[in-house]
Amino acid sequence: MTAQLRLLALPDFPVVQPGDDLAGLTMAALSRADLSLSDDDVLVYAQKIISKAEGRQVALASVTPGTQALQLARVVQKDARLVELVLRESRRVVRAAKDVLIVEDRRGLIMANAGIDQSNVADAAGEQALLLPQDPDASAARLAAQLRRLAGAAPAIIIADSFGRPWRLGTVGVAIGCAGLAPLLDLRGQQDLFGRALRVTVVGHADELAAAASLVMGQADEGRPVVLVRGLATLRGAAVRAASGSERHQPATALVRPAAEDLFR
Amino acid sequence: MTAQLRLLALPDFPVVQPGDDLAGLTMAALSRADLSLSDDDVLVYAQKIISKAEGRQVALASVTPGTQALQLARVVQKDARLVELVLRESRRVVRAAKDVLIVEDRRGLIMANAGIDQSNVADAAGEQALLLPQDPDASAARLAAQLRRLAGAAPAIIIADSFGRPWRLGTVGVAIGCAGLAPLLDLRGQQDLFGRALRVTVVGHADELAAAASLVMGQADEGRPVVLVRGLATLRGAAVRAASGSERHQPATALVRPAAEDLFR
Repeated sequence: MTAQLRLLALPDFPVVQPGDDLAGLTMAALSRADLSLSDDDVLVYAQKIISKAEGRQVALASVTPGTQALQLARVVQKDARLVELVLRESRRVVRAAKDVLIVEDRRGLIMANAGIDQSNVADAAGEQALLLPQDPDASAARLAAQLRRLAGAAPAIIIADSFGRPWRLGTVGVAIGCAGLAPLLDLRGQQDLFGRALRVTVVGHADELAAAASLVMGQADEGRPVVLVRGLATLRGAAVRAASGSERHQPATALVRPAAEDLFR
Repeated sequence: MTAQLRLLALPDFPVVQPGDDLAGLTMAALSRADLSLSDDDVLVYAQKIISKAEGRQVALASVTPGTQALQLARVVQKDARLVELVLRESRRVVRAAKDVLIVEDRRGLIMANAGIDQSNVADAAGEQALLLPQDPDASAARLAAQLRRLAGAAPAIIIADSFGRPWRLGTVGVAIGCAGLAPLLDLRGQQDLFGRALRVTVVGHADELAAAASLVMGQADEGRPVVLVRGLATLRGAAVRAASGSERHQPATALVRPAAEDLFR
């Protein structure tokens, strides 16, 4: 049989409001598509709807930029109130230049603008910003637990955002929250086609899933924020089963390269 | 209808030898799976089989390391002959440290070890290295032209490798060669759900496809080096159609961030 991976957008997922029950909305969307969940499934959620459900929207009018934000805003040429929010969400600034503000955020993630964006936020004046979830791994774990109760199955959960990258143009999907799967798969122990042990092949498994789901989500106006991934068990199942229990339940923060090993911070 | 992306491994793809006709092998594998190609399909090829077919294997015994390679090999603690090959393939060294050798290669790609690896190379002594294709975009264009003749359809072609990344652990699939599709999709002109123009949303489309295909290829012993991607036209079709002819036929080198805009080289 042909090895196959399928990625399905949950149909007609509603526009999410603060306080919405995403697990309930997910079950309703699955039922519309005549789908039921299994333990081998992965559900990938767009960060935006997690943030919205968790009420992470901030009115820019309510933000008073401090001295550091005012100075930095002149360098990066962005709204000082947005820069103030970025600084509040961050541990330190990694790079700042015209149009570029890369930070290490409170969660340890390194990315532009602390992941804060102003698109798809329901306000005609465009004066709303949407912060990342407070703790995306905890959000993923909560969703996983709720779905397990509602569905009687335990799909893995990924919360995906789109990040820019050094060296390469264009954003790609990355996993900022994970539950129930190994974010990194270590294939070092396995042998290659010719019986040679592979030396270094740790795969950013959850990031590849986030990138794949991003192809289905589209951006903005398309509104396909939840993607069901099917078929992984037959593809990477061996490596997944080989991962010990602790590896299998690591958070997405395991994907962040430790500062001491990072030559590019 | 549920928006859906399917990724299918071409079944029983043989171990590739130097000089092999990959377009012919692809047609045979498609026919075994009862699949025929359409213009909307994308075929993603693992870099390794392109390199093998193009005879890019080098016996390490034939390589004499020069002074620079000997010095650098002490720093990075790798085989000096491998380091010599890396230097020959590169324009400059971006970072060197124990176990780490990041270069800008002759193609402009920034990655570890100039993409040279020693796994999956058929030699019991393990003394063979496999270089990247001379010009992966040209390889993709050639394959696209051959398949168009054989199949009477014009699928897009991606040549994918796995790269490590600054800031994040684990490798992910990236596109090092492209033909017949837009490696970057610019969604900036489009509007989001609330009618706001999106500001900066250039998506690394071909890289996301490479990452998705990597989930299906697996690594090493699994031997699924060619992946057919179906369903993109209904997902990113609008943006793809909006891309002008010239964008649609850019090479994968368009994904490389220009040095002047790169704060992390």
